[in-house]
Amino acid sequence: MPLESETRLRVRYAETDQMGVVYYANYLVWMEAGRVDLCKLLGFNYRDMEIEDGVYLAVAEATCRYRSPARFDDQVVVRSWVAEANTRMAIIAYEMRLEEGRILATGQTRHLFVSRDFRRVRLPQRYRPMFGVSTDEI
Amino acid sequence: MPLESETRLRVRYAETDQMGVVYYANYLVWMEAGRVDLCKLLGFNYRDMEIEDGVYLAVAEATCRYRSPARFDDQVVVRSWVAEANTRMAIIAYEMRLEEGRILATGQTRHLFVSRDFRRVRLPQRYRPMFGVSTDEI
Amino acid sequence: MPLESETRLRVRYAETDQMGVVYYANYLVWMEAGRVDLCKLLGFNYRDMEIEDGVYLAVAEATCRYRSPARFDDQVVVRSWVAEANTRMAIIAYEMRLEEGRILATGQTRHLFVSRDFRRVRLPQRYRPMFGVSTDEI
Amino acid sequence: MPLESETRLRVRYAETDQMGVVYYANYLVWMEAGRVDLCKLLGFNYRDMEIEDGVYLAVAEATCRYRSPARFDDQVVVRSWVAEANTRMAIIAYEMRLEEGRILATGQTRHLFVSRDFRRVRLPQRYRPMFGVSTDEI
Repeated sequence: MPLESETRLRVRYAETDQMGVVYYANYLVWMEAGRVDLCKLLGFNYRDMEIEDGVYLAVAEATCRYRSPARFDDQVVVRSWVAEANTRMAIIAYEMRLEEGRILATGQTRHLFVSRDFRRVRLPQRYRPMFGVSTDEI
Repeated sequence: MPLESETRLRVRYAETDQMGVVYYANYLVWMEAGRVDLCKLLGFNYRDMEIEDGVYLAVAEATCRYRSPARFDDQVVVRSWVAEANTRMAIIAYEMRLEEGRILATGQTRHLFVSRDFRRVRLPQRYRPMFGVSTDEI
Repeated sequence: MPLESETRLRVRYAETDQMGVVYYANYLVWMEAGRVDLCKLLGFNYRDMEIEDGVYLAVAEATCRYRSPARFDDQVVVRSWVAEANTRMAIIAYEMRLEEGRILATGQTRHLFVSRDFRRVRLPQRYRPMFGVSTDEI
Repeated sequence: MPLESETRLRVRYAETDQMGVVYYANYLVWMEAGRVDLCKLLGFNYRDMEIEDGVYLAVAEATCRYRSPARFDDQVVVRSWVAEANTRMAIIAYEMRLEEGRILATGQTRHLFVSRDFRRVRLPQRYRPMFGVSTDEI
């Protein structure tokens, strides 16, 4: 069972659209908030990974399935976990629901490890155990 | 061959992030801009469809594959077309590239036709030919 | 001394721009988050005010003075309070700072009380004490 | 009479909120779009100014007065011009209106010239004539 982070956020007025519900692109922003908390749960700050190791999680693909709409001032819980990872890439999965339980959306993002100038790199050794990647892997 | 709309947009500073490229959720906003232009090309204003017919294109799923990063002030071209449609739903596909040709991303959105209160409805007859849906279909 | 709400938020990657700091328009989003919490502190949910009373706080003017930049993953505290109010309008003031104390920005928003169709209305009696407005005022 | 740029943009669904009009922070994004076009009209690309000269227009203050709401799919025209400038700072003013004439909002942004690390610098000589600043000024 992978570690799962939980991120709580309150729906902002800015995030709604004229249909009275949260605009669909904002769920990807929530996934990012979940991902940042997941990194902390795994044992590192994504901010430091960028600054200290020069490693970035470039997004290669993002998918979101919308189940029921979220509304202004709703309390949302984002669950995030590593669905798959190797030395080259990681897939993070998400479930977004209201605090009282109703599922809003599920999704996943596929990331490539890259350097500041977008060249693909291998995940540094010290992060491998956190992502569940063998330190022997090439 | 389905009709394809072309939408031109200039990357805003607001759309970049600290990695120096366009933040990944903004591609879904560009898809929306493309979709709105596609509706016009097909023969109607999405705005009027909402106001006059009370029909909304609720997003059920969105996917984006990121190929190469877009940067501030880049001129982007979004191509949009109907990939699939019936009386209940439509899938719109997108290709986003720089004006000079480099592909930035591809994606698609799956939509359900719904009423103002999010009940599923059938696409009204007058829109069916525009989406390539038989007017006989149930 | 007016009541002051405190809102805590974590800077999102989405909120940064290519200069590596928070994009300037996002401070207005944070003001909104502060404003919503201020309403709760004053004794009502802004969401209910819109739904139950049909009263909206339309923004007539917004100003922000930027003192020092906020960065990704910073913990921000937004203090919000009613600077001025009468039956027709309210001015809300804000101070945004890092948790450790450095001031990021100050600002204010001037609001008109309006109905769903943007006609100006008087603040309903039950909200007047919350905004420090005399219930006798016209 | 200062030079005035005109920027045309179409209101995106993403820019609306549940009140059915454009969310107030987005006007600052439109000002940015106007500002970028104003730079081009004055004779330079803001993108190049950052990359080639390492000079940035940090926002020190922004103000917007909202006159009448903009709606989804409206065609907006942003007029931008230099209201004041010296070797240390520039004030840009904006007027946003619908293509058919109704004024939506007016505003201004005050900018400091800074280096990549946010130290204040003087506007390089070659940009001074463009901002109407004497090349003799200190």
